[in-house]
Amino acid sequence: MNVDRSSLQTGAQVRQACRAGKFTGQTSGLAPGFAQANLVILREQDAFQFLRFCQKNPKPCPLLEVTEAGDPGLRKLAESADLRTDLPRYRVWKQGELIEEPTEISHLWQDDLVSFLIGCSFTFESALIDSGLSVRHIDLGVNVPMYRTTIPCEPAGIFSGPLVVSMRPFKPADAIRAVQITGRFPAVHGAPIHLGFPEQLGITNLAQPDFGDAVPVEPGELPVFWACGVTPQAVLMQAKLEFAITHSPGCMFVSDLKDEALAIS
Amino acid sequence: MNVDRSSLQTGAQVRQACRAGKFTGQTSGLAPGFAQANLVILREQDAFQFLRFCQKNPKPCPLLEVTEAGDPGLRKLAESADLRTDLPRYRVWKQGELIEEPTEISHLWQDDLVSFLIGCSFTFESALIDSGLSVRHIDLGVNVPMYRTTIPCEPAGIFSGPLVVSMRPFKPADAIRAVQITGRFPAVHGAPIHLGFPEQLGITNLAQPDFGDAVPVEPGELPVFWACGVTPQAVLMQAKLEFAITHSPGCMFVSDLKDEALAIS
Repeated sequence: MNVDRSSLQTGAQVRQACRAGKFTGQTSGLAPGFAQANLVILREQDAFQFLRFCQKNPKPCPLLEVTEAGDPGLRKLAESADLRTDLPRYRVWKQGELIEEPTEISHLWQDDLVSFLIGCSFTFESALIDSGLSVRHIDLGVNVPMYRTTIPCEPAGIFSGPLVVSMRPFKPADAIRAVQITGRFPAVHGAPIHLGFPEQLGITNLAQPDFGDAVPVEPGELPVFWACGVTPQAVLMQAKLEFAITHSPGCMFVSDLKDEALAIS
Repeated sequence: MNVDRSSLQTGAQVRQACRAGKFTGQTSGLAPGFAQANLVILREQDAFQFLRFCQKNPKPCPLLEVTEAGDPGLRKLAESADLRTDLPRYRVWKQGELIEEPTEISHLWQDDLVSFLIGCSFTFESALIDSGLSVRHIDLGVNVPMYRTTIPCEPAGIFSGPLVVSMRPFKPADAIRAVQITGRFPAVHGAPIHLGFPEQLGITNLAQPDFGDAVPVEPGELPVFWACGVTPQAVLMQAKLEFAITHSPGCMFVSDLKDEALAIS
């Protein structure tokens, strides 16, 4: 049913395949070099406080674009995109409960829906790999390990909750390079928020992540922690909004923007 | 005898006071915002291999300027400087032995002398402090702790020896900031070369530095290591050249260049 993944080399090709119902899978590794984004769709009545939440917590919630209410199109991330059809799979939430995981949301669209496109760590992981660094969970073919910390986000209205971090282990010299490389990408979480002492974040056992899969940290390696895009999703779930739509995990929006266009220099 | 330090607010003022014999002290804290530099003066016959050594080891030996043989002036770092008189104090070396510490070297000048101006960590320490970070040895009013590592420099001719590193302890989030801030200054040692595991550098006891003074590393802090400008001086001494002149420790050349002019962005 799904098209050959190797035929999806640009953001436009991925979106077109999704729109035609020919691709419903995970987007990791598709359209190499094109920035992918997390999607959150809320009613206008909730949008202002969520936008304030993102503005107050830019490391976990780096906003790439926020739409006008009712507009399923984008201005900056892609031309002629339709957020109702152009992702492989969505999640629909009511009162904080997952209701369905459709492959398009045209039937749910309303004039008061505002879409938030939030930067994704795929972009900086590509930059790490392009620089010759090894990213453990990618080498192992598993999901990145993620942890709830004891660090609270800055709250905004009903939106509050702990910072969620992702962890990638590196040897010290590679950790330094990783700080420099990811620091160039403030639009996709930027530099790490911590390295070295998980207990300072309230993480008691690296082998038991709250999301994703555990990866080994070898002797002589430092665990390096980045603010994670799961943070706004966890905050959203906790807020138990009457209605919300997000992308399905791993099924991101693929943009026309090149990863390198998100670098500061 | 020495002029009031507070009257020395620019590189030109410091150099003028040195030239007039009115200042012979350490330059740390003088002319805030102006880049200071290490000085090495060699005979032309030794200059090429030393230049190659610096070129092969840019982290410990970031070259700011290399003069023509016999020219005591500079083109880039300062106008109308005279390297024979414009530093507070010099060290004169013969066969690797310290012979004298004069306040000017006009009587020793020869037509075949080449001067190397090498970036100094004062520049990036100013940037760290301006960013709100605390630099331990500065807070304690002592010299930075420095350690010989087991990492060999890339040799060039008779010049070889271990990398010497300086150490500054930081909490993890500050260590990350320190990587980002000092990474902007590749002309003055740049980003750290290591953090977290001194034993990986062959350093067995942080409390016993090979040069400078020990500073405490508190629980929850990471020792962060930068390549150090003492490296070329140690290499020079070990080479036991027939003749060399350096600045006296802490008595640097103060340039007309602003620290920020050495940043890459």
